[in-house]
Amino acid sequence: MIGLGALGGLYGARLAAAGHRVHFVVRTDPAAIRRAGLVVRSPVGDLEMTVGRPDSQEQVTVGQGAVGAPRADVVVVATKATANAVVAPLLEDLVEPTTTVALLQNGLGGEEQLAAVVPNATLLGGLCFVCADLQGPGRIEHLDYGGVTLAQFQRSGTPAGRTPAVEAVAADLTAAGVTVTTEEDLVLARWKKLVWNIPYNGLSVVLGAGTDELMADPASRALVFDLMEEVRSGAASQGRTIEADFVTRMLADTEAMTPYAPSMLRDFERRRPLEVEAIYRVPVERARAAGTEMAGTEALLRQLQFLDRRNR
Amino acid sequence: MIGLGALGGLYGARLAAAGHRVHFVVRTDPAAIRRAGLVVRSPVGDLEMTVGRPDSQEQVTVGQGAVGAPRADVVVVATKATANAVVAPLLEDLVEPTTTVALLQNGLGGEEQLAAVVPNATLLGGLCFVCADLQGPGRIEHLDYGGVTLAQFQRSGTPAGRTPAVEAVAADLTAAGVTVTTEEDLVLARWKKLVWNIPYNGLSVVLGAGTDELMADPASRALVFDLMEEVRSGAASQGRTIEADFVTRMLADTEAMTPYAPSMLRDFERRRPLEVEAIYRVPVERARAAGTEMAGTEALLRQLQFLDRRNR
Repeated sequence: MIGLGALGGLYGARLAAAGHRVHFVVRTDPAAIRRAGLVVRSPVGDLEMTVGRPDSQEQVTVGQGAVGAPRADVVVVATKATANAVVAPLLEDLVEPTTTVALLQNGLGGEEQLAAVVPNATLLGGLCFVCADLQGPGRIEHLDYGGVTLAQFQRSGTPAGRTPAVEAVAADLTAAGVTVTTEEDLVLARWKKLVWNIPYNGLSVVLGAGTDELMADPASRALVFDLMEEVRSGAASQGRTIEADFVTRMLADTEAMTPYAPSMLRDFERRRPLEVEAIYRVPVERARAAGTEMAGTEALLRQLQFLDRRNR
Repeated sequence: MIGLGALGGLYGARLAAAGHRVHFVVRTDPAAIRRAGLVVRSPVGDLEMTVGRPDSQEQVTVGQGAVGAPRADVVVVATKATANAVVAPLLEDLVEPTTTVALLQNGLGGEEQLAAVVPNATLLGGLCFVCADLQGPGRIEHLDYGGVTLAQFQRSGTPAGRTPAVEAVAADLTAAGVTVTTEEDLVLARWKKLVWNIPYNGLSVVLGAGTDELMADPASRALVFDLMEEVRSGAASQGRTIEADFVTRMLADTEAMTPYAPSMLRDFERRRPLEVEAIYRVPVERARAAGTEMAGTEALLRQLQFLDRRNR
């Protein structure tokens, strides 16, 4: 597991609890995590486990970098998209010809970045529908939801279908108690996730508002709707159909949701880099290359670039 | 002069200093203004004058509402567009068949609002290119610039040409030391002003940044440019041509400007209502009615509506 943030910690702990040997590769101090252990507070059950050094006999271990990391059948990348430039060289050392790499990340372009360094690996894309937060070293607060959508990356951009690698990782996660949806078309799955991410993540930062406030005001609600429609048209430019009905459901689901500060707002408040490239710039550029302008999304992209720079 | 804000105070004091009898109609406490007098601090010369009651022999007087207001050849409306609903009924009492009404205001739709109550008045639109700020009752800080563009309103929306009323008001202002530009086409003049107002006013509020910050960052600068281009396309939808070169000059002029917090940012910081309708909604709606979408501007409109409501 590369990364022990909210996602890596939550799914890593679940997989360990289901009997898997899980090793975390982290950038920050592994000793602090070993002292604290891995603790998940969750409405579906808390988990607490000790964490050892990479060369120990513990089921869960943590280390810095690839040196000393055990061989893995599956390498899960559970870092922010902003870290892909750092993750890519790590992967080169961790991946063997038979390794499956699963990228749990929002936005577009991540698989292409990783495929450039591990061209022969089987590469899956994963989308996490989860509210969770890292509260300290090894300490994860799981708030709500938790499902993962999985699909195989294909360099050509065409749907790969439900491959054996997708089914195998899905089976492991399912056995660990995670609700998994497998998809034939990773590109469509990623654009569908953007229908939520593009309006709520960006507007939460620019307007300093949670999902509940954004839905309660008619102006921000209308803007959310317009942005969702733009994402639909962006998907269409890539040959992917998202039904109008999907937007309607997304709005209703968000309204019914517990008030929630999207992860980009939490990153902003902690002065961490925002996933502006993957969630905004790459989608806008890909749509433009196909002849579709996403003007409202591009305006939001520019605002976020400005705020992100000033914030750090 | 309806309104004793930065604009009303600055131009009213200049006209009084040039020998005109000037009466201010205000909504707030006229006694406070009479106690303080009218004080303009300006790089082109300070002005200080006593202010009397409407029935006094003073050259400058102030009162609340239309009752007791002296008869005027010219009624200048120098309030924010957000006050037009309050100003309109006042005008009914102040305007006679021979009165010229000059509306010093940004955005679109103001003349139409006033023309509805004084259909027979000669109605001029004025655009002030000025950095000025009201610092207290009757106390105006003039920072930079100060020119006024004048043109006659015509209900049909077609250019009225340089009418005698435009020339007369222009002559009074010129004699008072104000640089005046007369235009044949009020609609074109208003859209040209929007090329500046739409990007800088809105983005200064949403991003909490002055013109210098907006120009220094490549992302916000690109967004300013995109919004200016949208305003050009909006103008084109109304049959008005703004040359591409105008945008280039506007960007260069703003870059050369003393760092400046646009008036909308100052209004926002003081929790005053923002001129969102006149500067954003009406232009977006008029362009849409003519088949042109201003998507980036509309996104900004929605953000400002949200922030304006939450702010008050």
